[in-house]
Amino acid sequence: MLGESDLSKNAVIDFNKLNIVPFVSVDNMMKLVLKVGVETFLTELAGYIEEDFRRWESFDKTPRVASHSREGVIELMPTSDGTLYGFKYVNGHPKNTHEGLQTVTAFGVLADVDSGYPTLLTEMTILTALRTAATSAVAAKYLAPQNAKTMALIGNGAQSEFQALAFKAILGVDELRLYDIDPSATDKVIRNLEGSGFKITKCKSVEEAVVGAQIVTTVTADKLNATILTDNLVGSGIHINAIGGDCPGKTELHRDILLRSDVFVEYPPQTRIEGEIQQMPEDFPVKELWQVITGEIEGRNDDRQITLFDSVGFATEDFSALRYVRDKLTGSGLYEELDMLADPDEPRDLYGMLLRAEQKQKNS
Amino acid sequence: MLGESDLSKNAVIDFNKLNIVPFVSVDNMMKLVLKVGVETFLTELAGYIEEDFRRWESFDKTPRVASHSREGVIELMPTSDGTLYGFKYVNGHPKNTHEGLQTVTAFGVLADVDSGYPTLLTEMTILTALRTAATSAVAAKYLAPQNAKTMALIGNGAQSEFQALAFKAILGVDELRLYDIDPSATDKVIRNLEGSGFKITKCKSVEEAVVGAQIVTTVTADKLNATILTDNLVGSGIHINAIGGDCPGKTELHRDILLRSDVFVEYPPQTRIEGEIQQMPEDFPVKELWQVITGEIEGRNDDRQITLFDSVGFATEDFSALRYVRDKLTGSGLYEELDMLADPDEPRDLYGMLLRAEQKQKNS
Repeated sequence: MLGESDLSKNAVIDFNKLNIVPFVSVDNMMKLVLKVGVETFLTELAGYIEEDFRRWESFDKTPRVASHSREGVIELMPTSDGTLYGFKYVNGHPKNTHEGLQTVTAFGVLADVDSGYPTLLTEMTILTALRTAATSAVAAKYLAPQNAKTMALIGNGAQSEFQALAFKAILGVDELRLYDIDPSATDKVIRNLEGSGFKITKCKSVEEAVVGAQIVTTVTADKLNATILTDNLVGSGIHINAIGGDCPGKTELHRDILLRSDVFVEYPPQTRIEGEIQQMPEDFPVKELWQVITGEIEGRNDDRQITLFDSVGFATEDFSALRYVRDKLTGSGLYEELDMLADPDEPRDLYGMLLRAEQKQKNS
Repeated sequence: MLGESDLSKNAVIDFNKLNIVPFVSVDNMMKLVLKVGVETFLTELAGYIEEDFRRWESFDKTPRVASHSREGVIELMPTSDGTLYGFKYVNGHPKNTHEGLQTVTAFGVLADVDSGYPTLLTEMTILTALRTAATSAVAAKYLAPQNAKTMALIGNGAQSEFQALAFKAILGVDELRLYDIDPSATDKVIRNLEGSGFKITKCKSVEEAVVGAQIVTTVTADKLNATILTDNLVGSGIHINAIGGDCPGKTELHRDILLRSDVFVEYPPQTRIEGEIQQMPEDFPVKELWQVITGEIEGRNDDRQITLFDSVGFATEDFSALRYVRDKLTGSGLYEELDMLADPDEPRDLYGMLLRAEQKQKNS
């Protein structure tokens, strides 16, 4: 298995300081990713994600808790395996891009179930892009045609380079066909991936992008029921990696595509609300990715089959990412110490801690 | 109204740095509380809490999302008023005390609904103790007998001094009758409240503690269905402030007391799961505190009436506390700047930010 971790490691960073929570800033996350190497990071992270999908039944699962507004959504995504607890705060605001802000920002926390104490706080904007791409690649490993080398990448925003690199690192994809309604977004991806070993074609339309692609990744950002991909553009035998349809009212695929595909999902109760299948009746048949990974059900079983990963992002994937970062952090020095937890000498004497702080102020 | 805030103030701390989230450490929270003064802090915070109860219907409300384990619970408590979003992470682990850890630790986040960006991260262990006490006092202001001066305080752990000071600051309570199964806990409270202007009696039993008390506060920590207070100890006309029964399997009052009382709650769907009324049938009648505050329903209406505030702690109270801290922070310097949000020059160029960081490393 890819980059498997030692599940028995519960508290790798032992500060012996009860008040301290290690914090990974954006700057330190970038340093960590660069130190490990993006493709190695994606490959090892995919290993953790796959490992946690494999023990799917040991997780406490719940659809994310969403607070919707006119402009976007703020979500909390908690999960626990009984030993560790993790959650992510993440927003989704498509209009942010026009204001110079990120569509998606995130941070996450890992905690010890036994004590309830947080043990890690980290930026997750970059980490979410990495884990989303790694999850797509894990799914494609089981669902895409054997030896798929060409991927159409429709939507060339913040996520697209990460998707490309994960598919390269984990599946060996080395040819990209790029399309975005904004050609400057495509130019950005071409510039950023220069020297990464891809053969890249800049396409003028979705039609052109899908030609010859065994994998089609849709990762557009507009919050609406869009039809990025119509049925006539989907040839037999391909794998569709549908990333962008991930909240109520936001889809990318024409429903006829769903009717012709085998649809694989992370956590059905959440995907039925947020994924492409929100267009379909409540009993629309789906297959669960974790069961494909454990071998309980078949993934791809036919050369002409259209497989569709209706990705919305699930809490266990963030949990895997938090575990991975925690393990990588040891000895790296790439974190700060946050004085986040009140730690009176005597646990019941919280007020006394305040009094002693006052005394200290007076004495100094 | 107490310490009313200006609701129109959305972003008081304007960093003009998109990546930065202000962080209030435990140390800075203590400094802030001491600078304001504990009783003033409690009074002003109670004003914010009351104000938010008054506009109860404008909040997006949901029972907290709990992850239960054998030893305790980890909870996320989100809410939003459509302009601000707030949530608290909080654990409850009664056994922690025996291991030198806090039963309850917490931190919280305030965010801007329009952009989804977090705007404040703060410790909330101390702040939760303050907001719980302030909420109790707000409820008692409407429910306790007029001119109640004597409070029995049963359970003398981490919350008890805060409860005492809130009732002093907001209701004028100046006599305390203390009891804890562990006399050293009571001694701690006596020591800590020396010079605070209370007449304090150390009692040998619950029976002794409740004698002559117009308000009885129960705030014990054991996770079990305990009977701290039995029916025969509850005289007519008193107000019971029941704090400790706040999660499934954790109650403090004999059910006969509930049958004789008018029971006031924060958010019924949550209290029926977590409060004293978890002992009662699903249709057990309760009154909502916010309706008492707005005047829609009566609070205390009879000298012989037993009023019971079945407090479990609700997300809007933490939201009020986050708002209050944010407003108090301006110009105080009592926060650090956390580099928590990825902020590429071009929002769609998240990967490019990573590349530029790499280039910077190579050049340096």
